[in-house]
Amino acid sequence: MAAAPVWSVDPRTGKRREQVAVEATPREVDRAVAAAHAARPALADRAVRAAFLRSAADLLGATEAALVEAADAETALGPVRLTGELARTRYQLRAFADVVDEGAYLDVVIDHPDATTTPPTPDLRRYKLPLGVVAVYAASNFPFAFSVPGGDTASALAAGCPVVVKAHPDHPATSELVASVLRRAAAEHGLPQAVVGLVHGFDAGLDLIRHPLVAAAGFTGSVRGGRALFDAAAARPVPIPFHGELGSLNPVVVTEDAAAERGEEIGTGLAGSMTLGVGQFCVKPGLVLVPEGAGGDRLVKSLTAAVSDTEPGVLLDQRMRDTFLAGVTERASLPDVTAPVTPGAGGAHTVAAGFLTVPAARLAADGAHDLLLEECFGPVTVVARYTDGDEVTAVLSRLPGNLSATLHLSADEAAGGGRGAELLAALTPLAGRVLVNGWPTGVAVAPAQQHGGPYPATTSTSTSVGATAIERWLRPVAYQNTPEALLPPELHDANPLGLPRRYDGRLEH
Amino acid sequence: MAAAPVWSVDPRTGKRREQVAVEATPREVDRAVAAAHAARPALADRAVRAAFLRSAADLLGATEAALVEAADAETALGPVRLTGELARTRYQLRAFADVVDEGAYLDVVIDHPDATTTPPTPDLRRYKLPLGVVAVYAASNFPFAFSVPGGDTASALAAGCPVVVKAHPDHPATSELVASVLRRAAAEHGLPQAVVGLVHGFDAGLDLIRHPLVAAAGFTGSVRGGRALFDAAAARPVPIPFHGELGSLNPVVVTEDAAAERGEEIGTGLAGSMTLGVGQFCVKPGLVLVPEGAGGDRLVKSLTAAVSDTEPGVLLDQRMRDTFLAGVTERASLPDVTAPVTPGAGGAHTVAAGFLTVPAARLAADGAHDLLLEECFGPVTVVARYTDGDEVTAVLSRLPGNLSATLHLSADEAAGGGRGAELLAALTPLAGRVLVNGWPTGVAVAPAQQHGGPYPATTSTSTSVGATAIERWLRPVAYQNTPEALLPPELHDANPLGLPRRYDGRLEH
Repeated sequence: MAAAPVWSVDPRTGKRREQVAVEATPREVDRAVAAAHAARPALADRAVRAAFLRSAADLLGATEAALVEAADAETALGPVRLTGELARTRYQLRAFADVVDEGAYLDVVIDHPDATTTPPTPDLRRYKLPLGVVAVYAASNFPFAFSVPGGDTASALAAGCPVVVKAHPDHPATSELVASVLRRAAAEHGLPQAVVGLVHGFDAGLDLIRHPLVAAAGFTGSVRGGRALFDAAAARPVPIPFHGELGSLNPVVVTEDAAAERGEEIGTGLAGSMTLGVGQFCVKPGLVLVPEGAGGDRLVKSLTAAVSDTEPGVLLDQRMRDTFLAGVTERASLPDVTAPVTPGAGGAHTVAAGFLTVPAARLAADGAHDLLLEECFGPVTVVARYTDGDEVTAVLSRLPGNLSATLHLSADEAAGGGRGAELLAALTPLAGRVLVNGWPTGVAVAPAQQHGGPYPATTSTSTSVGATAIERWLRPVAYQNTPEALLPPELHDANPLGLPRRYDGRLEH
Repeated sequence: MAAAPVWSVDPRTGKRREQVAVEATPREVDRAVAAAHAARPALADRAVRAAFLRSAADLLGATEAALVEAADAETALGPVRLTGELARTRYQLRAFADVVDEGAYLDVVIDHPDATTTPPTPDLRRYKLPLGVVAVYAASNFPFAFSVPGGDTASALAAGCPVVVKAHPDHPATSELVASVLRRAAAEHGLPQAVVGLVHGFDAGLDLIRHPLVAAAGFTGSVRGGRALFDAAAARPVPIPFHGELGSLNPVVVTEDAAAERGEEIGTGLAGSMTLGVGQFCVKPGLVLVPEGAGGDRLVKSLTAAVSDTEPGVLLDQRMRDTFLAGVTERASLPDVTAPVTPGAGGAHTVAAGFLTVPAARLAADGAHDLLLEECFGPVTVVARYTDGDEVTAVLSRLPGNLSATLHLSADEAAGGGRGAELLAALTPLAGRVLVNGWPTGVAVAPAQQHGGPYPATTSTSTSVGATAIERWLRPVAYQNTPEALLPPELHDANPLGLPRRYDGRLEH
């Protein structure tokens, strides 16, 4: 059987640009994983890893023009967005280099023998080790930041884990190019190329998750694809952690006072957030609870104006466009659903942004309108008009887990008046990140970031963005009564590496 | 259909003592989980939780005589061991109260707006929230420390999660008694009884893991039972974390120099560790790599003497005794396996400790002797005699994951001479806790403890013992641009609760 070709496709025309690679056979997947596994010792040195990550950031910067051009040709995301995304990706690599240098992520804990505990405590010293080879499933919508050089790769390499990336079919040429840059950075520090493996093909992705030497996986994509991989990870003879981000509705609640105070501003802000990147963000606000009445009407009016002014855009691939068109058609045809701006086809290869409205009472009842509580990828959102707080509560109680949940409050409510605190408490169980008077698009790479929420937003309690994303690729080990002569320096009493740690119960840094 | 009775059985006679309860119907499981779910807000206050845990420790102490008597009647573990286990359990409850008071487990991270990052950082404040109702599956072999009042319950309550415990059928009366004590402690602090639910029955255990309001589970038991529950947890419409401890071989490597230096002492120590509690510890050393030659012979001789002197003991139940007898018979009948002290039946209800020997080369080869690489619960171990380091490496490469791995070194090797460091590095990937010149039985409740290792030792990267066991029942949430008036005090700039935290990147405590 001939190897299946992997094509780079121009989403602006739907035409094939070039053959980039072939899909990896099971044997090729095995070879990539085995080589990555063998490369683990090369990543053991923290200083080398940090330097490697910084070199990767530098080289991606030096290659910026070529990378942005390659990615734009395959994704139509445009040079401005892609240049920004690459800058973010480079910042992320450097941020993880800093995390590695600081070493707090090692969670060093040292207990000396203590006969007063029950039972007595021996000498115990604990820190964290890399899990092994990490499989990274690249996202369609971020050819850099959530793909080959993205957060999963950066955090796994920071942890000391080689990666094998399953490229996304929407940007295979970019994936190959970026992988070559990362490997050049690895070579600068004497690291084997196999610290960053790359495979193409749907079946290769399944082979990868089932490979005995793969120790963990990171995924960004759809519920359907992610759940299939999650299930495969759980069904292995030796199950492995699967950190998947599968989808998110990202609900927004606008209070009556907020709508009265700044309905127009909220409407315009919503239009910007839901159409950003042609609505192809995992934190796109997909359901907005807006009060009935004058304030809410002004919000909808400004939303209508702003969305109407939005130019049609190109989605990442034709299948996505088909799914979007079918999804908005099906949603718009539900009873009592109206479309002040009809989302749908733009030109032959573009889509037009729009939004739907529905009475919130329809969503509160189990049944016919549940489709509106599912993510629809692309430039569309659902405005649910509510008459009272009970309807808001009822709709929120029916939502699945989310990456983000957003609350728009009046100045008085934000200062602690009215139902602000109550609503914040109601949104908190729904999401990993809760925002007040802002929009969820734009996810900062910061120590306090939490990009991950209850299922299906995430299949674990972890985050894929921010410093703590490194925790996903580590496991603790404790050494008992082990002489310092045999212990790694991280666990020596004298703390030669200056690590933050817990020492006989006390935090030190 | 009549409710299935739950009997308390005396393992010393195999006779039923009394009917304790009935197996929970699906409706009763639902009621217990719903009540626990409704009790979550009552556990929100950290100070109340800490006080509750301390009262539980106090009341368990005040009830010691009755608890030890009840547990001994059902488990035959004896008053000395059970009194010690109860003391450990009380210490553990207090230790988690201290963890709650300190609040480091909340992982507070505060980032202020920073325009210099890419993308810019908004105000972000992150800490950890309780996941919700935790299902706890009690262990047979620890009626206190890994059952109703054990580490899973203590750490879940410390995290703010109500528990529903699935009692182990080996000690239903003890389970009921302990649950009533915990509920009395809860009442002392105005907490609803439902913060500690209790159900009996195999089917109830499955109903519990599938219940939509159960948010996570802790399990200690067998590969078979644990894997079935793990699979059920993963197959849910909304999968949940399942922290299961399924079994462990706990390999031991004795170097040639160690055997030469103190073969007798190691043999005696091994006998004590493998027969402790009638071999019913999850960290019982089940495979010991001992060198051929004079030193190893002395080790085997002293092991023979010490094990021969061990009195027959009563296992936790009849099924366990049957499984042990079948397991040792099957193992002893393998080619080249000898039994210097034959493990098997003692009296009608007891078993006699023993051990098997086999050439390590037999284990290194794939195939016929693989059964010796599986845990055999009860007072038996396998001594594998090796001729060189390659055989040790070959056997280690065939082992599944373990809770513990142990290395016995000579004084010179422990000081850094010879292959000590190399062997430590070879054992580290196999286990969560690595010991030098000690025995794995006896697991301290300490901040640096790691009781959990690669699968099947544990189904996640977590620990079930020690301060960090609380991490299993939490998820992070980040608040973005949220006014302090709406934020919990844990996330206020002024740090009114004096929590350790990361503040604008810097660790503070």
